[in-house]
Amino acid sequence: MNYHSMSADQLRETQSDLRKLYDALCAAGLSLDLTRGKPAPEQLDLSNKLLALPGDEYRDAAGTDTRNYGGVVGLPELRQIFGELFAVDPDHLMALGNASLEVMHDLTVFSLLSGTVDSDRPWRDQKVKFLCPAPGYDRHFAITETYGIEMIPVPMLPDGPDVDACAALTADDPSIKGMWAVPTYSNPTGVTFSEDVTRRLLEMPAADDFRIYWDNAYAVHTLVEAPPTPLPILEMAAAAGNPNRVFVLGSTSKITFAGAGVSFFGSSTENLDWFKKHLSIKTIGPDKVNQLRHIKFFGDADGVRAHMAKHREILAPKFRLVLDILDDRLAESKVATWSEPEGGYFINLDVVDGTARRVIELAKQAGIALTGAGSAFPYKQDPNDRNIRLAPTFPTTDDLAKAMDGVATCVLLAATESLLAPGDS
Amino acid sequence: MNYHSMSADQLRETQSDLRKLYDALCAAGLSLDLTRGKPAPEQLDLSNKLLALPGDEYRDAAGTDTRNYGGVVGLPELRQIFGELFAVDPDHLMALGNASLEVMHDLTVFSLLSGTVDSDRPWRDQKVKFLCPAPGYDRHFAITETYGIEMIPVPMLPDGPDVDACAALTADDPSIKGMWAVPTYSNPTGVTFSEDVTRRLLEMPAADDFRIYWDNAYAVHTLVEAPPTPLPILEMAAAAGNPNRVFVLGSTSKITFAGAGVSFFGSSTENLDWFKKHLSIKTIGPDKVNQLRHIKFFGDADGVRAHMAKHREILAPKFRLVLDILDDRLAESKVATWSEPEGGYFINLDVVDGTARRVIELAKQAGIALTGAGSAFPYKQDPNDRNIRLAPTFPTTDDLAKAMDGVATCVLLAATESLLAPGDS
Repeated sequence: MNYHSMSADQLRETQSDLRKLYDALCAAGLSLDLTRGKPAPEQLDLSNKLLALPGDEYRDAAGTDTRNYGGVVGLPELRQIFGELFAVDPDHLMALGNASLEVMHDLTVFSLLSGTVDSDRPWRDQKVKFLCPAPGYDRHFAITETYGIEMIPVPMLPDGPDVDACAALTADDPSIKGMWAVPTYSNPTGVTFSEDVTRRLLEMPAADDFRIYWDNAYAVHTLVEAPPTPLPILEMAAAAGNPNRVFVLGSTSKITFAGAGVSFFGSSTENLDWFKKHLSIKTIGPDKVNQLRHIKFFGDADGVRAHMAKHREILAPKFRLVLDILDDRLAESKVATWSEPEGGYFINLDVVDGTARRVIELAKQAGIALTGAGSAFPYKQDPNDRNIRLAPTFPTTDDLAKAMDGVATCVLLAATESLLAPGDS
Repeated sequence: MNYHSMSADQLRETQSDLRKLYDALCAAGLSLDLTRGKPAPEQLDLSNKLLALPGDEYRDAAGTDTRNYGGVVGLPELRQIFGELFAVDPDHLMALGNASLEVMHDLTVFSLLSGTVDSDRPWRDQKVKFLCPAPGYDRHFAITETYGIEMIPVPMLPDGPDVDACAALTADDPSIKGMWAVPTYSNPTGVTFSEDVTRRLLEMPAADDFRIYWDNAYAVHTLVEAPPTPLPILEMAAAAGNPNRVFVLGSTSKITFAGAGVSFFGSSTENLDWFKKHLSIKTIGPDKVNQLRHIKFFGDADGVRAHMAKHREILAPKFRLVLDILDDRLAESKVATWSEPEGGYFINLDVVDGTARRVIELAKQAGIALTGAGSAFPYKQDPNDRNIRLAPTFPTTDDLAKAMDGVATCVLLAATESLLAPGDS
């Protein structure tokens, strides 16, 4: 029954039942973790052949000795494979180390300390702001927060960030220098940016050195038949007259090994030259043996697609399970809504306003770790205290079922508390 | 014969002979490279077993799944092995990615943008200077130059940097925040810091946030029986009352694969906590599979020592060859002096003052690439224009012999030009 239609007595009775359920949950002594978007061991197993690669070879097709120093842009074959998957010309794509987060960090640090190719002066010498579609990715927000960059939340809509809001802000404020974006199966909402939204983000008036961090972390991470066709984002940016606006990021962290993959950076020639100049101060080159390992493992872009189909076989049932439990336990009560993502690593759960923190606390006391309240928002401030990011990938199916059933109980219990609270009666 | 004792006629005659030699050299159409300290292919071959490791295992001794995210400090066993070699308590040593240069860059960037544990304010908000023992390592100097840190050259003496000069500078100037140092087989001089010099560097009065970048890049890279016993630098710093003064750096870049090794960072608990906090903003962890690969490959510190003995078998004859050619071609003329290093990657050649640039230009025209003039000095300014860094490791023995014979000809020819120049006659 819809909790919002219940009388106070009905709510009290429901709450009493839920308390019993919750006490039993606590008594079960669970220790479960739904916090991070980590691949499960069986997903990692899919890439175990990498552990013995490249075997007895160490030269790439061009004859480069991958064991030695050099080659700051990465191996051409790997850039070819992932260029196709990201819809980026391989000449505009670099293959780098094991963490695209590091690339995003470095792009920010280089801009702060030295400015971009379109900056009058380094960002550090001025007030700098970033647009932050929210809910979004907490590790993005941590970079900007750490370096004192002011974060302006903008709403996420079903087809991407609210581009009207974005355009209104950037048109008026040249101190807005950047924007975080996860264009495919966004973290945590699962939203994929439409072509129209994307084009408008590229065209909207903004500071010359305004940069969209196009973190295509889940470009091929589909839960359905196939991922969306990637937009040729760099060509679109050039066509929009803003060729330097986009930093494309990606990695194999959730394709092969989360800690031992390869990351990618794509951009305009001018931006790439700028990045290479700065990058060459801190490294003589990425781990090319690991890049060769990935080339040997995948062969080509279809090899990656076939590999992702195996991930999907593992992940789709886990997402289905979570959605079924949410539907079964929460649909009728009308105290929560949630995303039904077609890809990515998260399910976005919105509970009764003002109860997310309480749900997370209740779950914690029952031994179920959820991502911290507000984590998906700049400064960890969820203005409605209603957002919870669920990460279904890592736990076993059994653990996931137990954890989600527990979470549902916490959501319902917190809802009754809120609905019975003096202010709401 | 000693050129300095020659009459002008004798010099002219000698020069005429040298010109013929030089013309023949140019006619030989060489294309040889003595610029960078790169391992030779046969050195890289010593580590080829790494190419198929870790094989079918992916857990370390503690049971950590190295394939997944996490573990920002690196695998304990690897920290144990290299802790012994660097004389750093493994609890004070982190194992990181493929480039210690990147760690040094990041330490500088974090200090610039956020300050150190002992800084009143971020370095970016003030004038910052670094002491630069010179000749030194060009990539060190590139980091400080890039970020506008003023570099103050200090002389290198046979037992390390001129510590009296260092102490006089740091005592008077709190804007001196750092110092570059390669304590073992220094790049390019081959000098190893004595215990006394080291202790004085740790004890000398300096700003609270003064940091010595103790880049022990060649800790085990000996050309003689065994490397020097490493100094317990962190314990010495603590004993000197300056526990946070030292950042210890190292890597396997010239032990295993130059592009695919593991780097290390050691420091006080306070510094490590500071570094981890900042590092965690840019990465979820290093490539632990590569760390496991190195653990399996070496087994223990003696495994590393045995491995370095094989490097020595390859490198010692190359260094001997260069020294023999220098002795044979240049000793009598008294127009050059050079280091006879017991380890490391370089031979330091000092030619007649004012002729290094000319020698490098002559060699270039003959198809022999030498490290750019002044490269071993801050701002690439060799005050005497006499220093040339020779890197004998990468070329084959044949190429090395040809190149060095050519270099000797260039040194002698440039010397006659200088001695015959109007100002000197």
